[in-house]
Amino acid sequence: MKLIIGNRAYSSWSFRGWLACKQSGAEFEELVVPMFDAEWEERREGDEFAPSLGKVPILWDGECVVWDSLAIVEFLADRFGRDLYWPEDESARGMARSMSAEMHSSFANLRRDLPMNVRKSYPPADLSDEVREEINRILQLWAQARARFGGTGDFLFGDWCAADIMFAPVVTRFVTYGVPVPNFAAVYMKAVLSHPHVAEWIDKAQDEPWVIEQYEAEKA
Amino acid sequence: MKLIIGNRAYSSWSFRGWLACKQSGAEFEELVVPMFDAEWEERREGDEFAPSLGKVPILWDGECVVWDSLAIVEFLADRFGRDLYWPEDESARGMARSMSAEMHSSFANLRRDLPMNVRKSYPPADLSDEVREEINRILQLWAQARARFGGTGDFLFGDWCAADIMFAPVVTRFVTYGVPVPNFAAVYMKAVLSHPHVAEWIDKAQDEPWVIEQYEAEKA
Repeated sequence: MKLIIGNRAYSSWSFRGWLACKQSGAEFEELVVPMFDAEWEERREGDEFAPSLGKVPILWDGECVVWDSLAIVEFLADRFGRDLYWPEDESARGMARSMSAEMHSSFANLRRDLPMNVRKSYPPADLSDEVREEINRILQLWAQARARFGGTGDFLFGDWCAADIMFAPVVTRFVTYGVPVPNFAAVYMKAVLSHPHVAEWIDKAQDEPWVIEQYEAEKA
Repeated sequence: MKLIIGNRAYSSWSFRGWLACKQSGAEFEELVVPMFDAEWEERREGDEFAPSLGKVPILWDGECVVWDSLAIVEFLADRFGRDLYWPEDESARGMARSMSAEMHSSFANLRRDLPMNVRKSYPPADLSDEVREEINRILQLWAQARARFGGTGDFLFGDWCAADIMFAPVVTRFVTYGVPVPNFAAVYMKAVLSHPHVAEWIDKAQDEPWVIEQYEAEKA
């Protein structure tokens, strides 16, 4: 398997796809293609990028290509075992899949106004009402998952699962932009940041040479 | 199982969730709650709507709730058999899942400018460049799926599958707004409209008493 990703610092969908691949336990090759520079522009013309018109992440496995992070999750769950990715209990799994799908299609304001940048932390930002509403919805989902299915584990459904993978870039955004959160969420976020896969991604992002201006605007 | 849906005429996500339930072959109860009228406003305050803050579709099964159409597909595939929903070949399945996920998160301009209305057909509309580009992407995805995996079947991957379910409301939009399509797409669209589940949905939509103005604007 070979995973094509964008900058570790900025590409939240790449982060999800990469976490999903790590979760499989299988070896995979990584190809990092920095966004918005000459190499990116050139490479995204190539065949490897054709299925998604240049968007990342893209997972290649021989003839087989999967070009969306949620599709990568389900593809790997199919191949390596559903229980690596989703809770075993059917009600928990129904909620985990619903939350993950909501993350996949929603929260456009949050994603636009607070772009991921795992190398930075800014003073608490002024948030629009739309962003506040989306943050409240996310906190409500986290609270319900933890209360109903968290048990004695550290994550949304106890053990680390695909729902945590889908929300991991939200956790780093909350840190980057100093979003105030209730205590239960702070505890959950700490657990996410301590997960070895998350820590590895953030660590590797520090050393990337590329600095892309549109992600580096001062937020205050 | 009980599926809560919005108006059959207008609610494209309900259409997908309902097609997914039909595909299971299982009996399920349907609750139609018309959007934007007093009953809707009142009902969406109720517990049944709480998990999604009032959005449809919502699938209930005892304590288990699933509130997003793509999550409903995967939930039912888990319970009733993956091969009812996704192609058996792994490469085909990878592409089907990727296309379905892309439909789930993208094509915002098409969805906004050409809202679903299975009771109407308008003269060909003036389309913005953004909408044209999204239509071209959809046609490209259909063409690739048909060419690589369509075989002798009528649908994207031969037999009717979840990818067809995800794109079914796009097919009705292309008809409603007279979008010009190449011949292969016209043949595919005819097959979709003739599928018994699709035909049943469109048929039932004709008799719904509700007419909601924002979906009935003349497009010319």
